Amino acid sequence: MKIGIDMMGGDFAPLEAVKGVAAFFAELDAPVQLVLIGDEEQIKAHILNHPLPAERYSIVHASQVIEMHEHPTKALKEKKESSIAIGFYLLATGKTDAFISAGNTGAMMVGSLFSIKPIEGVLRPTIGAYLPREDGTLGLLVDVGLNADCKPENLNQFAILGSLFAQHILNFENPKVGLVNLGEEEGKGNLLAQAAYPLLKQNALINFVGNVEGRDLLQNKADVFVCEGFTGNVILKLAESIYDIVKRRNIDDEHFNRFNFEQYGGVPVLGVSKPVIIGHGISHAIAFKNMIRIAYRMLEIDLMGKIKSSFVAPTT
Amino acid sequence: MKIGIDMMGGDFAPLEAVKGVAAFFAELDAPVQLVLIGDEEQIKAHILNHPLPAERYSIVHASQVIEMHEHPTKALKEKKESSIAIGFYLLATGKTDAFISAGNTGAMMVGSLFSIKPIEGVLRPTIGAYLPREDGTLGLLVDVGLNADCKPENLNQFAILGSLFAQHILNFENPKVGLVNLGEEEGKGNLLAQAAYPLLKQNALINFVGNVEGRDLLQNKADVFVCEGFTGNVILKLAESIYDIVKRRNIDDEHFNRFNFEQYGGVPVLGVSKPVIIGHGISHAIAFKNMIRIAYRMLEIDLMGKIKSSFVAPTT
Repeated sequence: MKIGIDMMGGDFAPLEAVKGVAAFFAELDAPVQLVLIGDEEQIKAHILNHPLPAERYSIVHASQVIEMHEHPTKALKEKKESSIAIGFYLLATGKTDAFISAGNTGAMMVGSLFSIKPIEGVLRPTIGAYLPREDGTLGLLVDVGLNADCKPENLNQFAILGSLFAQHILNFENPKVGLVNLGEEEGKGNLLAQAAYPLLKQNALINFVGNVEGRDLLQNKADVFVCEGFTGNVILKLAESIYDIVKRRNIDDEHFNRFNFEQYGGVPVLGVSKPVIIGHGISHAIAFKNMIRIAYRMLEIDLMGKIKSSFVAPTT
Repeated sequence: MKIGIDMMGGDFAPLEAVKGVAAFFAELDAPVQLVLIGDEEQIKAHILNHPLPAERYSIVHASQVIEMHEHPTKALKEKKESSIAIGFYLLATGKTDAFISAGNTGAMMVGSLFSIKPIEGVLRPTIGAYLPREDGTLGLLVDVGLNADCKPENLNQFAILGSLFAQHILNFENPKVGLVNLGEEEGKGNLLAQAAYPLLKQNALINFVGNVEGRDLLQNKADVFVCEGFTGNVILKLAESIYDIVKRRNIDDEHFNRFNFEQYGGVPVLGVSKPVIIGHGISHAIAFKNMIRIAYRMLEIDLMGKIKSSFVAPTT
């Protein structure tokens, strides 16, 4: 089992990436090989200070970096020697089994969609994000920006993908799926939500609990919150901004500290044939470690195989 | 000048409504007559404890109340003697100049759309809500649920309506208008936001500052935040829920106390020919007082006239 890591992605790369890899090795003695992708010289220099077990990793040199502000499609096309481009090349050609980066989010999305295939039957892959709930657990919000415009069947598929992730990675038994909406009652909503509701209701693969409103997003009325990527993106960034405000106001509260999204490591791209994890731009060592753990767990329990089985039969 | 008030709407009516009316009279000696609509006996009983100047109000008896959980259209049709139905009747027939209620929000929306006319040229009236910004001021979010599905021109009109309210009622000079979106750059967004952007950009009646993201909603990047009512409703209810969490966690912070939306009194229906203010279900006296003040201010400065002038010429 080989997991590729973009060592150049994120504001504190490659140092924090190296420290994250070291922390992962220290914590978990698993049959997994890490493939460190990036500037070989820089990576080696950091490994001198944060030694890694030689037999558990390899380095693949990448002479370029896609910067945070670059246009994703253009950058991926023009920077073929970048760590992200090489990362997806290794993944697509089977030289790695998963890929992780805290670099340019757009480039990671484009790479996920065009370098590797979606799982057969998946119309549109999706990106999820965690929501810190008041009871101390995490909810999962899908989609958070990969799909700004959706058809009802897309939401229905996000529900299945999110459900499987919540069950097998977040360890929810029979996760509750809620449709993000502007009212609780069946029949409420914009045209998309109104049309998606009956699909979700009839979907035997999920535990649909009905509509959820904005006030339910930080509660446990549902475990998986489904919406199109426009609303999901606004929700996620609004929630992230709460943490910044809390810090600026010197509020130190256990729950609101959980709005520090950096600690969750990264968000999964769901529906593509191999695990891809997109990290937060300001990822530190613990974020890298957590991303590797999630990718490892996705491979260990064969989440991709479970998703494939769900999409073999029609979903409704 | 006559302002109608539904005395039966809200969880603490009619007591808190009477107290709010008393507070308004005590605070402002303006040439305005208040028309108190509701159960005459109950209202009079409360006035005994909270005396009102006899020459400044009248009571119009309403024998029915539309409860919070009732179906708006059905209730308005069947309960012709309800305070909300009578309130809109008085408004539509010119017996009052504005109408305020903290009752059934749906019934207030339906009444606004069907009892009184939209201003000529306004395709869809909208409902705005306040957003507490970190700098201590309030932003305005339009739409927050009246229009779940929108066309680009609807958003363009919400921008004008919100702008005029922000300028004349919230006292912003040349209010900045932002388009709620999932990215900052022009060209980002779902199909609706992409199509609305050029309309807003070319709109000479507003001060368009471009796209704003979820993280900007509680900041002063814009004063008026424009989006369709689906996303707006989710944003509003998520923000409202933050206050509940803050209280439950015993956080007493000046800024987060401003997430108590009750204090803002109510939200305006914009684009209809007369001022209508919809209050929060848990309105107390101060909320009623503030709603009357806003309705009074809208009449005093002739906001309706200003809106009419803006919609005489084509907006783009």
